[in-house]
Order: sequence, then C-alpha cells, then structure tokens
Amino acid sequence: MKNDRLIKALLRQPVDKTPVWIMRQAGRYLPEYREVRAQAGDFLSLMQTPDLACEVTLQPLRRFDLDAAILFSDILTIPHAMNLGLRFEAGEGPVFDRPVRDAAAVRKLGIPDPEQDMPYVYDAIRLIKKELDDKVPLIGFAGSPWTIACYMVEGGSSKTFSRIKGMLYEDPKLMQQLLKILSDSVAEYLNAQIAAGVDAVMIFDTWGGALSEQAYKDFSLASMRAIVEKLNLQQGEKTIPCTIFTKGGGLWLEAMADIGCHALGLDWTTNIGDARKRVGDKVALQGNLDTAVLYSDPDTIRKEVKKVLSDFGDHPGHVFNLGHGIHPDINPEHVKVLVDAVHDA
Amino acid sequence: MKNDRLIKALLRQPVDKTPVWIMRQAGRYLPEYREVRAQAGDFLSLMQTPDLACEVTLQPLRRFDLDAAILFSDILTIPHAMNLGLRFEAGEGPVFDRPVRDAAAVRKLGIPDPEQDMPYVYDAIRLIKKELDDKVPLIGFAGSPWTIACYMVEGGSSKTFSRIKGMLYEDPKLMQQLLKILSDSVAEYLNAQIAAGVDAVMIFDTWGGALSEQAYKDFSLASMRAIVEKLNLQQGEKTIPCTIFTKGGGLWLEAMADIGCHALGLDWTTNIGDARKRVGDKVALQGNLDTAVLYSDPDTIRKEVKKVLSDFGDHPGHVFNLGHGIHPDINPEHVKVLVDAVHDA
Repeated sequence: MKNDRLIKALLRQPVDKTPVWIMRQAGRYLPEYREVRAQAGDFLSLMQTPDLACEVTLQPLRRFDLDAAILFSDILTIPHAMNLGLRFEAGEGPVFDRPVRDAAAVRKLGIPDPEQDMPYVYDAIRLIKKELDDKVPLIGFAGSPWTIACYMVEGGSSKTFSRIKGMLYEDPKLMQQLLKILSDSVAEYLNAQIAAGVDAVMIFDTWGGALSEQAYKDFSLASMRAIVEKLNLQQGEKTIPCTIFTKGGGLWLEAMADIGCHALGLDWTTNIGDARKRVGDKVALQGNLDTAVLYSDPDTIRKEVKKVLSDFGDHPGHVFNLGHGIHPDINPEHVKVLVDAVHDA
Repeated sequence: MKNDRLIKALLRQPVDKTPVWIMRQAGRYLPEYREVRAQAGDFLSLMQTPDLACEVTLQPLRRFDLDAAILFSDILTIPHAMNLGLRFEAGEGPVFDRPVRDAAAVRKLGIPDPEQDMPYVYDAIRLIKKELDDKVPLIGFAGSPWTIACYMVEGGSSKTFSRIKGMLYEDPKLMQQLLKILSDSVAEYLNAQIAAGVDAVMIFDTWGGALSEQAYKDFSLASMRAIVEKLNLQQGEKTIPCTIFTKGGGLWLEAMADIGCHALGLDWTTNIGDARKRVGDKVALQGNLDTAVLYSDPDTIRKEVKKVLSDFGDHPGHVFNLGHGIHPDINPEHVKVLVDAVHDA
C-alpha cells in the first residue's frame, strides 16, 4: 500500500501525518456525483451498477488528498437482499414495502448469501481495488444490526422508533432473534468484503443513540460484539482494522472500546480529548469535526480543524473525519480546505 | 402547598415518595385534550385562550396521581411575540414566515414585554393557580435561547441546523447578539411567570445536543447561565427551583450543574445512577425513563420504572419523569401504570 496512514492510525501505529477521509465523501455535494447518479436513474440503480459505484467511489480522490476510499454502497443492502421491497422515495428516505413486525415475519427471514444475493457489492469492490492499485486503502462497511432492524421494523425512517422500541420492550426475545439473524448476516457480508479485498471495515450504528444505556448494551452493542467476534480480521500478515460508530453513543465509549474492535468513530458532540482519556490505549479514534463547520469560511474551517487535532493531542491513533456524513449542500472547495488543513497541521 | 414533593425533591430535601410528572402530560395522547383542541381550532388558538389552556393543564391531574401541573404553552411564545409570523403546519411543525438570518434582522428584534405582549400566558397562570388551589405546584417554563434561535434562524424545524450553525461558525458575534436578546427575553418572561405565581421553572434546551461540546458551552449553556443569574428565584421564604434540560446533553452534565440551577433534566440515554455520581450533590435530577417503554405492557413498564428508581438509588433529589415528551400515540392507561408504579415503589 503506497499510502498506509489510515491502516497504521487505526492500529495505533505512528504516522507522518494524520490520515483523513470524510463520511459520505462520495456523495451529492459533488457535481460529478450528481451527474453519474442522473445517468444511473436512481440511487438503487447506481449502487447496483459496479462500474458506476466504482466511478463515484473514486471521484472524491481525484479532487482531494484523501487517505482512504470508501465503497459506495448503502447500509440497507442486506434487508434489500432479504426481499423486503426497498424503495428510496424522494424526500422521505428509504421505505420497505414489507416491514418486519411480528414473529412470523422474523421467522421468514433467511441469511443472504453475499456473493450470490448481492454480487454488485463484491464486483464493485474488485473493480475499485483494481482501479485504486494500492494507492490508498479501501474501506468496506455495513449497517449495525440494530440500525438495519430500525428500518426493517419501522418500514422506513422514524423520529420516535415507536414500533421497534415497542417490540424491544414487549418482546425482547423476538428482538434478539431478529438481531441474531442480522448479526450473522452482517458478519458474512463483511467477511465476503474482506475476501474481495477491502483493507478496513466499519460498522455504522446510526440509531444506537436512540436507546437507553441498558438497551444499547443489551441489544445494539451486543449484536456488534457478535459480529466482531466472527470477522476474519487477520489475513495472513495483514490486519483488517475494524471501526464501530454509534451516532449519539458518546456516553458509552468505554463499553464500545471493549468489544474487540480497533477503533471507535466519534460524533461531533464528544470532545475527542476527553474520549481519548476515557478509552486509553484500547482503541484508535476517528472523527469528529462538526459537519456544519463546513458551512463557514476557510479560516474558520482551518481553526476548527486545528482544535480537533490539538484536543486529540500528540498520540498515535487518530483518523480525522467529520462527526457525521457530509451534507449535500456543502461547497466542495471547503472540503479541500479541510483535507489540506489536516495534512498541513 | 398540600403536595410539595416536587419542590422538596428539586431542592434535594427528603420526601415520602418520589414525585412524578410527565413531559407533555397535557397533550395529544389524551382524548379530552384532543376534544378541547378541536374546539379551539388549532394549537396557537388553544395556547392563547387562557380558559382552554387552563383546562388542558388540569386534565392529566384528573386522571393520574401527578405531583405537579405544568403550564400548557409552547417554547415559541417569545419569537411569536416578536412578530416573526409563527404558524403551525400539520405534519411540519412550527414555521416562521419571517426568519432571522442576518445582522439587519437581529437588530430589528426587541425584547417583548411579558404581560403586555403575551398576556395569555400570565392570565392562564393566574387561572390555573386559582383552580389548583395549592393542591400541587405549577411549573412554568421557557425554551432555551439556543433552541428558540434554532427555529428563528432556520425558519422551522431542521435536521441539519445548517443555517444557524453556519451563522454560529461564520459570525459568532452576531450569534451571541441574538442569544443575548433571547436570554434577556427569557429572563423577563420567566420572572413574570414567577410573579404571576408559578412554583418552579424549567428551561427546555431541545437542540443544545446538536452542538459540539465547545459550541454548547460557549453558546447554549452560556446563555442559560445568563438567564439563571437574572431569575428572581428567592421569593421571600419561598425558593422557586429552576431546572434545565438539554436533550442529548448527557456528556456535559458537570458543566450544566455549574450554572446555578437547582436541577437537571436527563434524557433517556443517560444512566441516572452514573449521572448522580457525576454531579454529586450539586443538583437534583429529573428523569429519565425512555418514553418508548410506554408502548409495552404494564409489567414491563413497572419493571423499567423500578430500574430507573434503583439506578438513582436511595438519596434525596430525584423527580421521576420521562426522558422526552410523551408521544401522541401512547395509551393513557399506561401513563397511569407508570405514575402508580413510581408512588408504590
């Protein structure tokens, strides 16, 4: 690997410069992405066309001095492969025509075969790896079982999570059955990504922060631990670093650092210096500039980048990132300012 | 006051039973509320008709053995009095026709005169106090300056807070000017509520948790501190306890406990036992059952209520509540189970 800063930092090894990538770096804020997406027709078609998924994965690396590529895909590929009728409605986000709301629906769910049921994911990985030619590492990813379950049970986005939390409190065994199917599915899904060539993996727990501490530990975190235990993170000499990210999980970092992953993603509400003290040298940290800083001017962006770097301090184990996915209305020039500010620090 | 458990608990004095009230206890989950609201026509008319605001304030006390009433009103009364064109759109929440987005708009803002510009608030308080006849205390409240500013600048609800955070990072002085106008306004507004007879006050910082730690401390928390310093909390022999509640603020409790308020509201993501250890005996704590527990069955509700009580432990200074406002689709019978479970513990 020509640029292995990301892998080294995730494994808490010394690096010459703090590596940086951006959550949703391949996305709507880039005009060239919008062009390819228009060509594909819609989001699902784009995601399922390896040539185009490869193209949008590589686009941000042509513009910015990023230290990693991340597979262009979605956290809902698994329930999509479970044939639950996934659609993306404009302004509404994902919708499932056949939500999973009772024991009968849970019983019907099988564990998808990654290469057979989601070949587009693995074809895209192989294509991207070839194009990248070991210039920078490729990050693979999946949604967390709890987060995937939120969409499957609610049937789409939710503000209150009333259906899935109702299920969690009223029938915790059924909830655990569903999460077991999903953690087995995610483990196979990520192991196949590793076999296809990704250099690091990340689990996005977008909705774990909607839970109480006890429910987070018993349901979301437990199911992520089950995944990490099943991942083939040692590939000969090569270690595939695993990062977990729970948005709104800043209160639970100690517990998260304890499930066997290499790094934690931090959202923007946590002070990264405090986080480092709390997790000690157990894990690397990834994050965590407030995405909204990118709405301001270059000088402010540089100042806020420096603040995150100095809060983290002079230790190994920091991957710079935003604390949330970049918003579609951000000026791409501001992303360049951010990336360069991290490397020039 | 016949039942002064709430006041005593907020002042960390011993009580015979843990007091309990429910955020949004006067609300859409009650059929009798929906009737009065239909009669009023819309939410703004209901809020601005003291007879009806009094009626819906008292409704939950007829059904449940609650230890407090809370004024039926809204966190946006102040910008409404600033004549920014507040409307409530079905399914969309509050909308301001004249959002505040630049220095010229900030300069135009005056500090509303409470009794003159929002007489309906104070007429409702006097009516409710008369009807309550000192059976239980009446809680008055306001939105936090940051939270009110979010709606004023965004022009309504927001997921990303891009406009107001853009302003915060790009022009922090302008943001502080706006917050100063709002903290002065909230202080006058709450002092007039105290003069009209409320027995406790609470500041709802619904969107403080959208900020980074530094921005939270410099903007949202600083403006709440400025309010608390101006409040007339000592009324002769009587202390008016002041509670602040930042949703998503669990990481910052130590700083919140330091601004001179008597109690902190906790959302459901914080473990209340850990919170108690972190704030020591500086403040009382209010909360923090996950609202979603009310979707489950009575036995589960009783079990989860007991868990919150036992996590808090056997100390003075706990007011039981949900960690978030009750949802409109909750079964009122389940609220009865919760309230009785707190008192029977």
